[in-house]
Amino acid sequence: MQDIEQHLKELNISLPEVPAPGGVYTPAREFGENFVYMSGVGCNTLNGETFTGRAGAEVSIADAQRAAYQAALNAVAVMKANLGDLNRIKRIVKILGFVASADTFYEQPQVLNAASKLFCDIFGEEIGKGARSAIGVNVLPGNIPIEIEMLIELKENDRRISVN
Amino acid sequence: MQDIEQHLKELNISLPEVPAPGGVYTPAREFGENFVYMSGVGCNTLNGETFTGRAGAEVSIADAQRAAYQAALNAVAVMKANLGDLNRIKRIVKILGFVASADTFYEQPQVLNAASKLFCDIFGEEIGKGARSAIGVNVLPGNIPIEIEMLIELKENDRRISVN
Amino acid sequence: MQDIEQHLKELNISLPEVPAPGGVYTPAREFGENFVYMSGVGCNTLNGETFTGRAGAEVSIADAQRAAYQAALNAVAVMKANLGDLNRIKRIVKILGFVASADTFYEQPQVLNAASKLFCDIFGEEIGKGARSAIGVNVLPGNIPIEIEMLIELKENDRRISVN
Repeated sequence: MQDIEQHLKELNISLPEVPAPGGVYTPAREFGENFVYMSGVGCNTLNGETFTGRAGAEVSIADAQRAAYQAALNAVAVMKANLGDLNRIKRIVKILGFVASADTFYEQPQVLNAASKLFCDIFGEEIGKGARSAIGVNVLPGNIPIEIEMLIELKENDRRISVN
Repeated sequence: MQDIEQHLKELNISLPEVPAPGGVYTPAREFGENFVYMSGVGCNTLNGETFTGRAGAEVSIADAQRAAYQAALNAVAVMKANLGDLNRIKRIVKILGFVASADTFYEQPQVLNAASKLFCDIFGEEIGKGARSAIGVNVLPGNIPIEIEMLIELKENDRRISVN
Repeated sequence: MQDIEQHLKELNISLPEVPAPGGVYTPAREFGENFVYMSGVGCNTLNGETFTGRAGAEVSIADAQRAAYQAALNAVAVMKANLGDLNRIKRIVKILGFVASADTFYEQPQVLNAASKLFCDIFGEEIGKGARSAIGVNVLPGNIPIEIEMLIELKENDRRISVN
């Protein structure tokens, strides 16, 4: 098994700082024996570029993809900050991705692929390629173009073994 | 551990009646060993006030917050009706909140905070402060301004013990 | 217990072919001990009829219901293709249904009932009637009117027994 944190370095990816939650919620909520629900993660800045507005209107598809990449990177940063070690992740179960979209923009999957590909690059396809839904909406908080919510499964920990 | 039902009384909160489901679904679906998925819960009346329309258009942010508070209260009433005892709840895992929004309304998290704060008031932060996503949409069923869906974890019950 | 695959034949329902995923994702992701998350499933063709656009605008409520029925049928086809045997399903836990909607269309639950009823017809109410949220959005991928995402629980398998 590849070391994910080492692999991040090889990919020359450095994780952004995790901002304080923008509301009354927990960024990453562990539950059950091995699950984590990640709160909706947004994006609006990548390397100094800021994205606001809707795909197909103020935001081009290429910029929406850059925003989706950034949202995914932010999500990994939240995982790292809350789980301590990215190697604890057994699989990304599911991604629910919202794309603020003009009424005539139909390419939400192509936009979110930029996020999904980053997860596959970092974790490998077996861990990183979860179920996914791609949804268009008229507006997102702070006028960001992308928000993604994720369900993650962790590797079995000692707790289960001690129970049995 | 505080008794949640007693605490509700101390807060002077009385739960509204639970309406019949507005479609072919189960309001609270128990699954796995200890989980409950709550169907989307809406809101349109609080103390005789009725809210319809979109935040940032027909509905002010203050009224959208009152609607979010009411949706949260309705959700707790559905929990009580289906679980029997609110003390069975181990944690609110996750809230997915939709706010019917004008295209230029960006304050969905501030609106949903009114729901999240009620959960924290009733259950305490440790139980009540779950992961959350705040999403704007152009329209919700019946023209309500708010709909929230929730995943809940219950305390371990006897079933698991008997299995092992 | 009724045999679901036999029951499908009695209902004279034949499952459509499963298309290749329209993006970087896994159509049905097994996780935990007994869970499956189904990626968002769309619809646009039923018996040669094609549905595009928004309910309440280009798409009538009756056509939106036909599209919802078709999305549900597609979902069952994805289950069959990925699980092998529909009898493995213990319960549909939860459906998150999105209806591309004109701003003045409020009947999302009535539209999604067509999907929920099909699940109840095929699996019976006990298995098929999950929790559900019905959400309106301004646009969906490829301009489809309906997208549904599902969480499914499988019957306990041998894995758990061997662990204990």
